[in-house]
Amino acid sequence: METALRRFVRDYQGLNSSTVPELEAVPSPLEFARYVGANRPCVIRGGARDQQLPALDRWTDDYLVEKLAEKALRISVTPSGNADAIVNGVFVEPAEVQMSLRHLFERLDVEQDEQESATPSQNGNMADEYVSLAEDAGRDGPAFAREFFGEAPDVANIWIGGRRSRTSLHKDPYENIYTVIRGSKTFTLLPPSEAYCLHEQVFPHGRYTFDEASSTFAVERTSPEVTLPWIPIDPLAPDLVEFPRYALARPMRVTLHAGDQLYLPAMWYHFVEQDVGWGPEGPGKGVKAAIAINHWYDVRMDGHLWSMCMLQRRLLLALDGREDEDPAASSGEEDDDDDL
Amino acid sequence: METALRRFVRDYQGLNSSTVPELEAVPSPLEFARYVGANRPCVIRGGARDQQLPALDRWTDDYLVEKLAEKALRISVTPSGNADAIVNGVFVEPAEVQMSLRHLFERLDVEQDEQESATPSQNGNMADEYVSLAEDAGRDGPAFAREFFGEAPDVANIWIGGRRSRTSLHKDPYENIYTVIRGSKTFTLLPPSEAYCLHEQVFPHGRYTFDEASSTFAVERTSPEVTLPWIPIDPLAPDLVEFPRYALARPMRVTLHAGDQLYLPAMWYHFVEQDVGWGPEGPGKGVKAAIAINHWYDVRMDGHLWSMCMLQRRLLLALDGREDEDPAASSGEEDDDDDL
Repeated sequence: METALRRFVRDYQGLNSSTVPELEAVPSPLEFARYVGANRPCVIRGGARDQQLPALDRWTDDYLVEKLAEKALRISVTPSGNADAIVNGVFVEPAEVQMSLRHLFERLDVEQDEQESATPSQNGNMADEYVSLAEDAGRDGPAFAREFFGEAPDVANIWIGGRRSRTSLHKDPYENIYTVIRGSKTFTLLPPSEAYCLHEQVFPHGRYTFDEASSTFAVERTSPEVTLPWIPIDPLAPDLVEFPRYALARPMRVTLHAGDQLYLPAMWYHFVEQDVGWGPEGPGKGVKAAIAINHWYDVRMDGHLWSMCMLQRRLLLALDGREDEDPAASSGEEDDDDDL
Repeated sequence: METALRRFVRDYQGLNSSTVPELEAVPSPLEFARYVGANRPCVIRGGARDQQLPALDRWTDDYLVEKLAEKALRISVTPSGNADAIVNGVFVEPAEVQMSLRHLFERLDVEQDEQESATPSQNGNMADEYVSLAEDAGRDGPAFAREFFGEAPDVANIWIGGRRSRTSLHKDPYENIYTVIRGSKTFTLLPPSEAYCLHEQVFPHGRYTFDEASSTFAVERTSPEVTLPWIPIDPLAPDLVEFPRYALARPMRVTLHAGDQLYLPAMWYHFVEQDVGWGPEGPGKGVKAAIAINHWYDVRMDGHLWSMCMLQRRLLLALDGREDEDPAASSGEEDDDDDL
């Protein structure tokens, strides 16, 4: 079984490109359909500029602060810049604090040299706290995507972060169009077929708490204990002794600059770093911040993608002797032995 | 592993429709893209009529015989109506004989009550012996498919057969658009995820020989022996004692009438029966024959479909203790044990 999983990783690598294709023009819905159909990513260089996305020119610090007034925003903070991530064997979510955008910008100004980071919480925030910016960000998402998917995006988010902000390696059950507005974002991407390489394990769940008075963080374990599966690998410094299967992975890296767009297919593993940039007024003006928006579209669960991911997961659980984590197994919803 | 494969079959069944969707109008390339992307079939009722395919009105017996003059055509004949099929534990290809279309029609007139059948050999015959009919059949295939695939069909075939002609259950490494011109065709379809259910085995290769003088068939085993994997199940009368995994399959059946089109996705298992119909002159006129054309388009080997099919195949070989049939294993092209 392990041989079959390893060969699957290699077969896929042999049949697919090892780089992300770069489109120089916005694709037609039909061209875009070929990427979605194959569950393969692509970068559209300057796509948002070609689409004349207002955010690219409008989102100066002053404009953003004015639009959001002094509104208290939910901001995720962590001591190290990670969003959801494994910290000392615990899956730790960021602390959530309330602050105005003005306050966030002040923090980002300071944070560049410190160990902590802050970014808006991501729960469809473009329809919520940031709704006054939704028009600038293209309320319905890019036309080529809307036309192919046949519907408006399910969720839109805005991301505002400092140099230290980054995600851990994870996947989302959504088709994703990611657009950089200020600064740059570097994606490390791995296809769903490389699940074998990622040593997903189960971790206890916790959350950072943040004491504003002392500016100190602590990890609080969820009680009663909750566990969840997560990937413990840092793609920037993978520990191949502890995670030897990662040697077989073939991560693809691509950097997006302001105006660029990435189609990030559903179920692809991704790790996102960023570099900060000045606002649209040019160098030296405003707060150095990376700002991006993304649109999530419902993933189709028909076809093979979804069931193939479930098959891989079951095979990996069996390989690692963790069958008890299979929801179908523990719920007793199927009793396969009785059927033959 | 068997449990994982069984759950995969069920997961796919749970996430996908159990019937073939029926479109009442020719799809746009973008609508068609959604079916190809999901590797899911669809029927376009009256599609060829909407596209004003000349063959529908032109292909009377007289017209066909006139177009092909007295040309000697390669015709596949078998005693039972099967094309390539398992006969007494041997994979047997039809005998190939030469006859004119006039002669084939005479034979089909007789054959309806006999045990044998004859159809044109299928090796891209529309570009070869039947090229004088290619214009009537839409040389470049349907516009919606050409526009999505971005290229003309790789291969086009014509099929002319009697009531007894049918295929065995098999799959093709092509995207397929199938158009019925006369009579009807009934497809039994199974998705690639149901490979587990089909008990593919290895059979020795043979071929029918046909003695024209005595009109008798014999099976000649290929020598030196050649073997190939094939599916031994008759979907019309599956032997669930010998092939118990087929009980888990959920075959989809759909009948196409003259003018209807089927998108048959690459790697789908299919079994095709037919019923014969009169020519375009109406009932009682001409030879009762089923006539169809199909266009094969290159399948994309990127994305997951291809490597997923290879993964399933390897898992099934391991399950059945037949790892030695894996080309990668026997060629020694990989030595997985050395890598970790």
